[in-house]
Amino acid sequence: MQEVNKYFEDYNVGDSFTTAGRTITETDIVMHAMHSGDFMPHHTDAQWCATQPFKKPFAHGNMTFSISTGLCIQAEGINPHGMSYGYNKIRYPNLVFPGDTIRVKVTVKSKEDHPKHADHGLITEAKETLNQKDEVVCYAEHVVYIEKKNP
Amino acid sequence: MQEVNKYFEDYNVGDSFTTAGRTITETDIVMHAMHSGDFMPHHTDAQWCATQPFKKPFAHGNMTFSISTGLCIQAEGINPHGMSYGYNKIRYPNLVFPGDTIRVKVTVKSKEDHPKHADHGLITEAKETLNQKDEVVCYAEHVVYIEKKNP
Amino acid sequence: MQEVNKYFEDYNVGDSFTTAGRTITETDIVMHAMHSGDFMPHHTDAQWCATQPFKKPFAHGNMTFSISTGLCIQAEGINPHGMSYGYNKIRYPNLVFPGDTIRVKVTVKSKEDHPKHADHGLITEAKETLNQKDEVVCYAEHVVYIEKKNP
Amino acid sequence: MQEVNKYFEDYNVGDSFTTAGRTITETDIVMHAMHSGDFMPHHTDAQWCATQPFKKPFAHGNMTFSISTGLCIQAEGINPHGMSYGYNKIRYPNLVFPGDTIRVKVTVKSKEDHPKHADHGLITEAKETLNQKDEVVCYAEHVVYIEKKNP
Amino acid sequence: MQEVNKYFEDYNVGDSFTTAGRTITETDIVMHAMHSGDFMPHHTDAQWCATQPFKKPFAHGNMTFSISTGLCIQAEGINPHGMSYGYNKIRYPNLVFPGDTIRVKVTVKSKEDHPKHADHGLITEAKETLNQKDEVVCYAEHVVYIEKKNP
Amino acid sequence: MQEVNKYFEDYNVGDSFTTAGRTITETDIVMHAMHSGDFMPHHTDAQWCATQPFKKPFAHGNMTFSISTGLCIQAEGINPHGMSYGYNKIRYPNLVFPGDTIRVKVTVKSKEDHPKHADHGLITEAKETLNQKDEVVCYAEHVVYIEKKNP
Repeated sequence: MQEVNKYFEDYNVGDSFTTAGRTITETDIVMHAMHSGDFMPHHTDAQWCATQPFKKPFAHGNMTFSISTGLCIQAEGINPHGMSYGYNKIRYPNLVFPGDTIRVKVTVKSKEDHPKHADHGLITEAKETLNQKDEVVCYAEHVVYIEKKNP
Repeated sequence: MQEVNKYFEDYNVGDSFTTAGRTITETDIVMHAMHSGDFMPHHTDAQWCATQPFKKPFAHGNMTFSISTGLCIQAEGINPHGMSYGYNKIRYPNLVFPGDTIRVKVTVKSKEDHPKHADHGLITEAKETLNQKDEVVCYAEHVVYIEKKNP
Repeated sequence: MQEVNKYFEDYNVGDSFTTAGRTITETDIVMHAMHSGDFMPHHTDAQWCATQPFKKPFAHGNMTFSISTGLCIQAEGINPHGMSYGYNKIRYPNLVFPGDTIRVKVTVKSKEDHPKHADHGLITEAKETLNQKDEVVCYAEHVVYIEKKNP
Repeated sequence: MQEVNKYFEDYNVGDSFTTAGRTITETDIVMHAMHSGDFMPHHTDAQWCATQPFKKPFAHGNMTFSISTGLCIQAEGINPHGMSYGYNKIRYPNLVFPGDTIRVKVTVKSKEDHPKHADHGLITEAKETLNQKDEVVCYAEHVVYIEKKNP
Repeated sequence: MQEVNKYFEDYNVGDSFTTAGRTITETDIVMHAMHSGDFMPHHTDAQWCATQPFKKPFAHGNMTFSISTGLCIQAEGINPHGMSYGYNKIRYPNLVFPGDTIRVKVTVKSKEDHPKHADHGLITEAKETLNQKDEVVCYAEHVVYIEKKNP
Repeated sequence: MQEVNKYFEDYNVGDSFTTAGRTITETDIVMHAMHSGDFMPHHTDAQWCATQPFKKPFAHGNMTFSISTGLCIQAEGINPHGMSYGYNKIRYPNLVFPGDTIRVKVTVKSKEDHPKHADHGLITEAKETLNQKDEVVCYAEHVVYIEKKNP
């Protein structure tokens, strides 16, 4: 990752970029179950899944979310002027199965002054994680606390 | 995990439980960086961290969030009547360093009928991940879509 | 995992429970080979396996045994009054292949006073790990050293 | 691993060898907890361990057992004439902590004809896993089903 | 990673860049030993290492080499016009211990026409992996087969 | 691994051995991408690979190289009189896909006195990693610095 210097003023509502893709594999699902300790049968019991409408194990939403974050960071580089403030909304409207390839479309949704710190602002990014059929599999609103160049 | 059958009517605002604890290690941080592809220097460059106020690599927020989910699932078991609907807010008010032990306090914050599906409701749980000093290191509002016993 | 308080008196010969299921994947086999350093061709050389009666790589017995232990612990919770004493017999009567789903049936096989410690007893559990065809893939006799409520 | 051809007749009671050493790390314990799903606080909750006589997280017995098996296989190579039959006894008399280095001393304890198959015998190996202070941390009696050269 | 379009003509002898840093941990060494199956005592037997001049386990050269490659790719992005041709020299002049932070300095060392394909050339990059004391821990000469814009 | 004592005089040009085999899996590729941080689409984006002549994700050359090293060490054991000096050439003439089984053929290619240290020599081994169709997938010239018995 390279350092990329961007200030509050450098972000405009509607700006958008899309990350590289990454294929989610059975290995990813097994490793996330192990690491998180989330062995819900939806993810790790293929026999039970076969009796359900979705038929086979699918990815943990939190894993899709974590990998989406990694894809964004690899695409954007390191911005020393910004810091994650949190998320205001996360939804998982479609399932991710082994073999699906995801990428993330990031759009600046809004920007506002910080209520208390005059030298910083808050940017809200809409992060849509899309699969190879362009379906949204994760939607997250990410708030970034970011320095102003000219406060 | 055991199956635990709980319906919308079985949840009351203010109900609360706390999970078992888990110590976050250097191994966890390295593995999350690898899996997510998020190699931000805050997590994987000890030399750079030594020049910063926080002094040493700390855990990715998303990893704390994922492990918190795993702790909750191990504590609650599998409820076939509920399904995660998403999150409305995630904040990381304090950092997690290797050696810190986290646990999650889950409290029913609110409950409401589902606007369209009369046989289901929505429960909002406040999930506070605490460290060994009882500081909140992750705060998440989790919405669960849950079947009514007597719609 | 939740704490579950059970004493020697709370176990009866013939008591039985069955754990949740977990599907064994190629990922599990590769990871166990790596971790244990057991790269026997039965587990990691598909070309050689194709020349054998079993045709393809199968799971290490010790991995099935370790995952069975994990399934039991997730089902039973943490009992602060008991402690593993060891195993008296382990057999692997059938092979486990990627895609097989295992669960464990635990039955109290016998109980006896501890020869030296009057305030403790020994419980022997028969642990049968079953696949989706109800074949036993691992049989273990587990001895638990456990506190008496009323010695 | 190299192929090593040994028959029933090539084993003598009292024969013994010792494997290379391997240091058990925090990483090993975290990875075994993840893989097995055994997140007992003895292994993954350092805060709770600090309140116990053993003071800090120790290795899962099953992991020591699995790694001991790997060390034996790397030392012995692949013998196409033998097959694991099971274990008759496993005990964990001392704890293994991160930083301890284990190795395995394998001794032929007994040998007998197979009751039904005249062309095979059963060898029982005593496998003592020792730490750097020569304390036994795992004791296992391993039964090997092995071809006779001259039945 | 972003796509970066560079042709043979865009590289000049002496061009240089340095990647982000990454701290090598005990976890990395344990995981590389597992994955490669290289359990040489230099990397995984702390007790034996304590008797040697280097005192404690150090990183496998091949792991430093692999992670150096990853650091370069994250810094350079994806160039669809180039392809790795191989390496002409790899040396490991200094050891890497847990806690060391490495980064890679890449310099274009030479460039030449491809002997057979007029539309491609060969670039040789000198890749110096440096630790936090600016010592070279891995030196590799990497040859890249790369398209010409104007053949 | 067993200790094997071999001196400079014990190696003859043309000596050769072949290691055991190991099947490369999707799990290996995903884990190497994670560990190295090399998420090039050739290895982790199945959708993009489907548009390329090679059609599906293939193994990182560096991973094949690392696993080849592990196979050699398991075959050769630990020789306390030798030390890796580096590599003079690495090429990857064919791709490795999940399901391919590799083994390594090691041949002593040349030997020479060390220019400065009269008590040591240099052995160059040609390491050919072959797949199940006997195609070379990795070719490496490995230089070993090795003690003379009778300098």
